[in-house]
Amino acid sequence: MTVKKVALAYSGGLDTSVAIPWLRETYGCEVIAVIADVGQGEDLDAVRKKATASGAPSAHVVDVRRAFVTDYIVPMVQAGAVYEGRYLLGTSLARPLIARTQVEVALAEGCDALAHGCTGKGNDQVRFELAYQALAPHLKVIAPWRSWHIRGREQAIEYAQLHGVPVPASRAKPYSVDKNLWHCSSEAGILEDIWTEPPDDLYQYTADPRTAPDEPEYLEIDYEEGRPVGLNGERLDPLGLMERLNAIGGKHGVGRMDMVENRLVGMKTRGVYETPGGTVLVTAHRDLEAITIERECAHYKMLIGPRYAELVYYGQWFSPLRQAFDAFVASTQRTVTGTVRVRLYKGSVMAVGRRSPNSLYNAELATFSDDSVYDQREAAGFITLWGLPTRIFAQTNPHLIRFLHERVR
Amino acid sequence: MTVKKVALAYSGGLDTSVAIPWLRETYGCEVIAVIADVGQGEDLDAVRKKATASGAPSAHVVDVRRAFVTDYIVPMVQAGAVYEGRYLLGTSLARPLIARTQVEVALAEGCDALAHGCTGKGNDQVRFELAYQALAPHLKVIAPWRSWHIRGREQAIEYAQLHGVPVPASRAKPYSVDKNLWHCSSEAGILEDIWTEPPDDLYQYTADPRTAPDEPEYLEIDYEEGRPVGLNGERLDPLGLMERLNAIGGKHGVGRMDMVENRLVGMKTRGVYETPGGTVLVTAHRDLEAITIERECAHYKMLIGPRYAELVYYGQWFSPLRQAFDAFVASTQRTVTGTVRVRLYKGSVMAVGRRSPNSLYNAELATFSDDSVYDQREAAGFITLWGLPTRIFAQTNPHLIRFLHERVR
Amino acid sequence: MTVKKVALAYSGGLDTSVAIPWLRETYGCEVIAVIADVGQGEDLDAVRKKATASGAPSAHVVDVRRAFVTDYIVPMVQAGAVYEGRYLLGTSLARPLIARTQVEVALAEGCDALAHGCTGKGNDQVRFELAYQALAPHLKVIAPWRSWHIRGREQAIEYAQLHGVPVPASRAKPYSVDKNLWHCSSEAGILEDIWTEPPDDLYQYTADPRTAPDEPEYLEIDYEEGRPVGLNGERLDPLGLMERLNAIGGKHGVGRMDMVENRLVGMKTRGVYETPGGTVLVTAHRDLEAITIERECAHYKMLIGPRYAELVYYGQWFSPLRQAFDAFVASTQRTVTGTVRVRLYKGSVMAVGRRSPNSLYNAELATFSDDSVYDQREAAGFITLWGLPTRIFAQTNPHLIRFLHERVR
Amino acid sequence: MTVKKVALAYSGGLDTSVAIPWLRETYGCEVIAVIADVGQGEDLDAVRKKATASGAPSAHVVDVRRAFVTDYIVPMVQAGAVYEGRYLLGTSLARPLIARTQVEVALAEGCDALAHGCTGKGNDQVRFELAYQALAPHLKVIAPWRSWHIRGREQAIEYAQLHGVPVPASRAKPYSVDKNLWHCSSEAGILEDIWTEPPDDLYQYTADPRTAPDEPEYLEIDYEEGRPVGLNGERLDPLGLMERLNAIGGKHGVGRMDMVENRLVGMKTRGVYETPGGTVLVTAHRDLEAITIERECAHYKMLIGPRYAELVYYGQWFSPLRQAFDAFVASTQRTVTGTVRVRLYKGSVMAVGRRSPNSLYNAELATFSDDSVYDQREAAGFITLWGLPTRIFAQTNPHLIRFLHERVR
Repeated sequence: MTVKKVALAYSGGLDTSVAIPWLRETYGCEVIAVIADVGQGEDLDAVRKKATASGAPSAHVVDVRRAFVTDYIVPMVQAGAVYEGRYLLGTSLARPLIARTQVEVALAEGCDALAHGCTGKGNDQVRFELAYQALAPHLKVIAPWRSWHIRGREQAIEYAQLHGVPVPASRAKPYSVDKNLWHCSSEAGILEDIWTEPPDDLYQYTADPRTAPDEPEYLEIDYEEGRPVGLNGERLDPLGLMERLNAIGGKHGVGRMDMVENRLVGMKTRGVYETPGGTVLVTAHRDLEAITIERECAHYKMLIGPRYAELVYYGQWFSPLRQAFDAFVASTQRTVTGTVRVRLYKGSVMAVGRRSPNSLYNAELATFSDDSVYDQREAAGFITLWGLPTRIFAQTNPHLIRFLHERVR
Repeated sequence: MTVKKVALAYSGGLDTSVAIPWLRETYGCEVIAVIADVGQGEDLDAVRKKATASGAPSAHVVDVRRAFVTDYIVPMVQAGAVYEGRYLLGTSLARPLIARTQVEVALAEGCDALAHGCTGKGNDQVRFELAYQALAPHLKVIAPWRSWHIRGREQAIEYAQLHGVPVPASRAKPYSVDKNLWHCSSEAGILEDIWTEPPDDLYQYTADPRTAPDEPEYLEIDYEEGRPVGLNGERLDPLGLMERLNAIGGKHGVGRMDMVENRLVGMKTRGVYETPGGTVLVTAHRDLEAITIERECAHYKMLIGPRYAELVYYGQWFSPLRQAFDAFVASTQRTVTGTVRVRLYKGSVMAVGRRSPNSLYNAELATFSDDSVYDQREAAGFITLWGLPTRIFAQTNPHLIRFLHERVR
Repeated sequence: MTVKKVALAYSGGLDTSVAIPWLRETYGCEVIAVIADVGQGEDLDAVRKKATASGAPSAHVVDVRRAFVTDYIVPMVQAGAVYEGRYLLGTSLARPLIARTQVEVALAEGCDALAHGCTGKGNDQVRFELAYQALAPHLKVIAPWRSWHIRGREQAIEYAQLHGVPVPASRAKPYSVDKNLWHCSSEAGILEDIWTEPPDDLYQYTADPRTAPDEPEYLEIDYEEGRPVGLNGERLDPLGLMERLNAIGGKHGVGRMDMVENRLVGMKTRGVYETPGGTVLVTAHRDLEAITIERECAHYKMLIGPRYAELVYYGQWFSPLRQAFDAFVASTQRTVTGTVRVRLYKGSVMAVGRRSPNSLYNAELATFSDDSVYDQREAAGFITLWGLPTRIFAQTNPHLIRFLHERVR
Repeated sequence: MTVKKVALAYSGGLDTSVAIPWLRETYGCEVIAVIADVGQGEDLDAVRKKATASGAPSAHVVDVRRAFVTDYIVPMVQAGAVYEGRYLLGTSLARPLIARTQVEVALAEGCDALAHGCTGKGNDQVRFELAYQALAPHLKVIAPWRSWHIRGREQAIEYAQLHGVPVPASRAKPYSVDKNLWHCSSEAGILEDIWTEPPDDLYQYTADPRTAPDEPEYLEIDYEEGRPVGLNGERLDPLGLMERLNAIGGKHGVGRMDMVENRLVGMKTRGVYETPGGTVLVTAHRDLEAITIERECAHYKMLIGPRYAELVYYGQWFSPLRQAFDAFVASTQRTVTGTVRVRLYKGSVMAVGRRSPNSLYNAELATFSDDSVYDQREAAGFITLWGLPTRIFAQTNPHLIRFLHERVR
């Protein structure tokens, strides 16, 4: 494979730093480092300098934090996408955005190839490469960690020292970390013993619930057509809002999750996640939907969430099915305007109040003491027709009903 | 309608007490009170006496708590059935069991009719009557609250006093309560203002998280083929285990939920639920499934949960679809054996460890540093084929990919 | 209930003709007859005169055939909505359009009520009344056949004769018929014996396959973004195209269906349907989708079809869930442009050729003899990862695999 | 890789014949040919001799036709599994059975490897290898067509001639064929032009509808709990029944399908299928289900069919999800007993009559002229409650209803 100029998704870690000299050496090509700012909270100017120190003649830092919130996080929250019922998709969601950023730089710089620093065991390689295929199918793809003979951290350090790549002085954490403005995830290393609780000092975005404030804090979050737009009465842009929710949620220890999940590449893996602001946002959004979306629509939407989450987790962000889901979801969000009141306390968040100009909740309808909606006698007709299939089945198949009967004992 | 002898689902409350003289007066029939012990924690001997004092010549207390756990709660937990993602179905689940108990008494006593004390605005009338239709379609059904002219509590008290029915001395709570060994629910009355947080004294099964113990408590729950069988190494029968989990969960304030839900009869309503032991049980079971169920099976099972929950909530417990779901779920549970370690602390419960003889998690497979499962180069082949539909779509429809592109900005 | 002026959905049949004097007599109100032309192929001027002869001071014929094709039929075909896998929804689909037409006349005429001629046993009452609730929830609703004491055809004739309503001279068919430009359905009467084949003379839209032409006929149907726009190279408006397809399909005996279906109101019923042009349209559209929609999107869309069909059949045309589905479907149809060649012959229609500028089919990719898409060795990597969950499951649970093994014998 | 003895799935075609010397030469191993009789209708003794003539010291013919019908076809029909709505899975379904047969021989013969003759572009390689992984994960797997340097038929013939493998005298068909007792499929070659109709002489199992009998033929098929057990009143074993239905269906030209489908390995491909008896069986079974399965159960089952079909098509026959689906389906089939009358005529099959001792169809319930099931007034109550979510939505969001309104014009 001939490569002249490659755009590398660069993180600043040892893994992608080592890739710079390796790409140069292996392909005789120029390496452009692309550093996407997705809110990982690092000194990205230092990262940029490290890229050039490692041998990349040019390194770009691109701030995509606003797009991350608006075009990735918000649609995902609106879709109710939670992988395997628990994982809020923080890493999965950032990958297509980083890949997109990388493709844009590659096209502007006239690159003929794209590279990433993911290994062959994880999900991220799939997410990067499927995004490449969708956005720039004509560019070549290089995955050094699947190709070279470096195995493990020690060999990588050795290779780095041989090639003049700066090696971090501090010892690495005994697990892998991925951070952005939505979440911080930890996996591998000592976490591979799934019976053992993660150490206290693993958590970076959330306070230990035991040391969190002793009094609950109440927040009011405003939404317009499913988009978060304000906090405690103050209108905020989505990024500013996320940052505030992260700070408050983190202070109360909200949004920790310790789980085993199914990787796309076939094995199970443990992930420990912290999504403080995200957990608050998802909780409040779901609660607002409960009063503004009609029942049949709400129930069907619940089925779409898990499939949407699969798409994101499986690297299919840029796919026609996600587009179609987004259209579905957007239609449901037209009424999702209003305010939810949540309570945060020592690791948990709970909705305790909600209101909306489009509220379908009507105390007069729900009350048991009045007949304003319908004459209660009408319910008898409803029950007769609603239960008719069951009744006919029971009359026709009494032996199967006997079975039902016996089951109970 | 001619009725000679009616079996009434009797709770001991004013609503069903008033029904006794009304049924006698209206139909000239004998009233048999059926009191199902589903763990509501009341003095059921006193309830029985109240029934006879209200005019029922015979009143039966039937302890169905074991059946409740074994045949209702466990299948529902295994199915992952949670209504609208949040409600653990405590009331919905008890109704078909109470109805079944009532039918058994009715058949033994030679009754020709069944009666319940539900109003025409709620879900429970449907649950009772669909169970009647399934189990005893030949019996007549009477729903006094849909038929008579009594409206509201004051008229009921007046009617009671006129007919010698004992009237509770204490003032009623300003909301309705339903209790059993799975949950305690509150609704209506002051809760109809959905913006206002429930009062602190509403909660009966759970401590206020603020006053809960200041140190976390760890539990180890054992499962065999999806059934909970032990706690902290001690083997327990399911009922005993539930009672323990309720006590411990409640102490730590676990399992509160404040939500607006969609009733089957068409309107939205607010429910405030406490399911302390149930929340622990569901959390642990889900975590054990994560390591013992294969991915495709696990993902499909997630779609069945919401539909199963609809069936339960909509009164269709005794239905062929639930039978078929139970068969599906039972097949998935054959491997769900093992132990989950959970941490309870001030209102929240979190899984922190899990192990199983059937564990599909294998640290050696998941680790990034070794090639024991597959050569990492194989991942490239996977990605090529997995991404092929996307790549072809992108190459064929570049204008739609441009759209994707633009979306992001 | 006080009613001053009622808009009646008028068909010209005995059922709705009798309703005119009954409404006048019962409510002392004025009756406006609304006759929607949905392509039922009758002399609607005569129908209009019959309405006035029956006592309606004013009768409106509204031609809604174009809207029927464009806004009802096409979205339904695009959604792949087929009730219970077989029924193409001809009657279900016309009802909300007739109701909408009726509401528009009612609003223009200042009516305070709406009436229809459906009985209490069928689905149509639900379809009319849910449309009324969505479009004009403030208007009263009258359903004479559920309210009056007329039972059956003979009593209706007697009532008609007493009230000067013209009575058809010819004997009624021994079953009920509903016709429009999409289909002709027959049900009830002699068809209630579900073991017996419908009589030959029942079919009105389709030739008997035995007398259909002895040579196949080939058609080429053009689509643009999922909309049918041409036939055999000639561009046609949707209504004109439907009429042509009905004529040709009918000549070849295409589109008959004899089935038992589940009514919304709880019982099963037999319907015999003729949908000649519709069957051709659906067959061709599905075949074009096969080459223009990406796999994951296509597979998910197949799950939406049955739920969309339920919504239509269950009277929920005007509902937020249908709106959301339409948004999803519209997104998928952006690439569904091209031509399908179908063969019609003695009762069957079969796609035999298809082409599209957006075709995702690529002979070079599919061929087994070339490696242009991927190196066949890459497939090995795909299989390893794709099969990994199964392999781990099998290794961990050999006893369950033994079960698999034994099953086979 | 060291291989001592390999069991090869042998078909008798050039592809697998050439594999015999190649395996011997490449691995220095013994080759055991396994020939599964799945009803492909060839002289399998001659195939066996060809295997030994090609260099396999031992070749086994195993008749698995009964297992094919009982354990593969019947469960699949009961599940309603049809891939992409049209493909009856004939090839997909045979593969796991052939693989299982091969594994059994391999274990009996002490083999240490398994081999198949599939290419790297198709689905079959996945189906074989996932079955191997499930049933014998300890055995090595060899896929010669992905490994060697032979490309295309001519090189294979050359290799055969060099190695003494008998080469067929006749010219190969200009497309690939796969046959068994369920279907005959054709693909590739001239069929890759998807605009052109398949040639008349391609069809092997079905008469041209134009030359099929001029009179319809009626059949009555009996089922017991979803299993076909008789034809025209004569009790038959499942295999005998399939053979009869194939003969009769084929005579009438029933069961042809020409379609483009999505391969698992990522590209679209055209398949032309003939499934004469299968199409009859599926049609009749579905019609019997319509009168014996309760509505909610039937509707949910329709969602399982497409996923079940994916599993089969994707090679996941031996998987826990299929086991769970089988348990679901078996529960639904307990009532599917009865007889369906179908009419076959010139390419089409249509149900025209059905009866069952468990029939949930009841003419008295369905009839419009009687009130035996429920008072028609009860329908009003049903409609009120059924329509309530829509009505509330419409009243709360009139602007969205206006949108609905405008859509129609």
